[in-house]
Amino acid sequence: MALSEFALIKQYFQQSELAAEPAQHAGVALGIGDDCALLNVPADQQLAVSLDVLVSGVHFLADADAALLAQRALAVNLSDLAAMGATPLGFTLGLTLPAVDEAWLAAFAQGLRSSALRYQCPLLGGDTTRGPLQLAIQVHGLVPVGQALRRSAAQLGDDVYVSGTLGRAGLALALLQQQLPQASSEQQRDLLQAYYQPEPRLALGYALRGLAHAAQDVSDGVLADLAHIAEQSTVQIVLQAAAVPVAPTVRQLRSEQAALALALTAGDDYELIFTAPVTARATLQHLAQQLALPLTRIGHVATGAGVHVLDAVGKPLTFAKAGYDHFAQEQTLL
Amino acid sequence: MALSEFALIKQYFQQSELAAEPAQHAGVALGIGDDCALLNVPADQQLAVSLDVLVSGVHFLADADAALLAQRALAVNLSDLAAMGATPLGFTLGLTLPAVDEAWLAAFAQGLRSSALRYQCPLLGGDTTRGPLQLAIQVHGLVPVGQALRRSAAQLGDDVYVSGTLGRAGLALALLQQQLPQASSEQQRDLLQAYYQPEPRLALGYALRGLAHAAQDVSDGVLADLAHIAEQSTVQIVLQAAAVPVAPTVRQLRSEQAALALALTAGDDYELIFTAPVTARATLQHLAQQLALPLTRIGHVATGAGVHVLDAVGKPLTFAKAGYDHFAQEQTLL
Repeated sequence: MALSEFALIKQYFQQSELAAEPAQHAGVALGIGDDCALLNVPADQQLAVSLDVLVSGVHFLADADAALLAQRALAVNLSDLAAMGATPLGFTLGLTLPAVDEAWLAAFAQGLRSSALRYQCPLLGGDTTRGPLQLAIQVHGLVPVGQALRRSAAQLGDDVYVSGTLGRAGLALALLQQQLPQASSEQQRDLLQAYYQPEPRLALGYALRGLAHAAQDVSDGVLADLAHIAEQSTVQIVLQAAAVPVAPTVRQLRSEQAALALALTAGDDYELIFTAPVTARATLQHLAQQLALPLTRIGHVATGAGVHVLDAVGKPLTFAKAGYDHFAQEQTLL
Repeated sequence: MALSEFALIKQYFQQSELAAEPAQHAGVALGIGDDCALLNVPADQQLAVSLDVLVSGVHFLADADAALLAQRALAVNLSDLAAMGATPLGFTLGLTLPAVDEAWLAAFAQGLRSSALRYQCPLLGGDTTRGPLQLAIQVHGLVPVGQALRRSAAQLGDDVYVSGTLGRAGLALALLQQQLPQASSEQQRDLLQAYYQPEPRLALGYALRGLAHAAQDVSDGVLADLAHIAEQSTVQIVLQAAAVPVAPTVRQLRSEQAALALALTAGDDYELIFTAPVTARATLQHLAQQLALPLTRIGHVATGAGVHVLDAVGKPLTFAKAGYDHFAQEQTLL
């Protein structure tokens, strides 16, 4: 091992366009290299922060492509900023590696760099250590005081929406486990892109400030994630199964019932689910066109508790698995 | 496994006096339970952030007492805030556990709670997942704009100081590895306390704002950490071996030479090292009395580069290991 920890960090993580440079990022007063990074927060803004941990063998396969892994890790966290309506300011990284692998590090840093540039979210600092492969990423963003989109803000009578389409990331797991031999190369590409390169819905998040009531991103599965909104807003959420925007590739590869289950219970889609007043329908339709992103009305907010899915004749449907709960799984799964 | 991930987080981490409550913490607009936490940063302040990762088998023993581990993890990160002169605002936690162990979680949360209370640094949010035991903690603090103590601020002619005494945490590792059979129970207690319950020098950090030039905490070892100040300030740091405040217990259990090597190269002491102008000597002497904390002048800042240690007759001393570099170690230690 030729390089020390310090030299490693410098070489791979302090490269330009990845590491925050105060001259180029107004929110960053001091970046990598001191005991702390220093952030500037304008007087009319609040700082939104979210920390996620991704573990090898639990959240990704040990031999995952390092650049894609980096992009996915950052995107997943940026999705939390999107769900609050916040603008990215920068991120910190805790990286645990079993051994020094310079090719891996170079690819990982390059993946981070491309996402840092794309989302204007540079690296502020962090920690690199030896141990089982694992990433901790904390994102930091700005949101005007009082305008963050909270889970607790759903109102009775609100419509419930989801962006994009659902189920591809969930089905990608079957593909990665060699359980989808019938998928064409085009279908494979579509599923893997959803899994490795989810698009944090940042532009949608900003646009929803002052328009939507409650919002959250789909990380554990639509039903599990909507359950947080229902609980924190003390309301019931009722979904129409027929309205759920199941991704075309998922419809092609799974039965109607299985496709719907994937769309509602598989995690990792990183679309936004949100509630908005009925009066916002026209504005949201216009917004969907502007962003070239489907915003599908899938249900409504009612009195009561929990999340319920109804079929075409109003009969409740049940689903075996409401989201991916790491501790409830007997086996480690991706 | 009776409890889901969500229920676990709620039960152990949302308890009062651990979880941030906006009503009680002016800096916290929104705590645990949403996509992000929201922080308030007053207009004349900057936010200081630092992320550290602690890995089982690398930074602590797998069977370490959970409450002590929690306290140590938070203290180590608070030490980074102290080194910048920042006031704690709150922390986020990424916790990876191999399995659900309720007794462990209860003790861990209790340890966190006692430190969160003591340092007024509540839990803002985080992530809990399954995997090899590991903690990622990010602390957040406030510091007046422009007053943070930076590594790059050492000036030619500055005195170099260290707080407290050195070497106990380093010697504790030998004890934990059963390599110190001659230590009395009182000596053992002294060493283990230094290791498990390091005191972040927060009050010293605040007091040094506007008084010291450069500062940093001792995490990798005095020589390794001073090397950062020397490099970032483009100066040389010259230490007098005879002035180094080696802890009494370390002097008792090790030869003079070995004790000095521990004091200068072992990490984990979490004292502050800082440089200050000669004109600050009287003020610093008074401050040491006020805080009941030794502030020892161990050297000075000169032109040149690197860190050099001189013996009583001015002869340079060399030390085999300048700090603990995780990637340079062939074996996992502790």
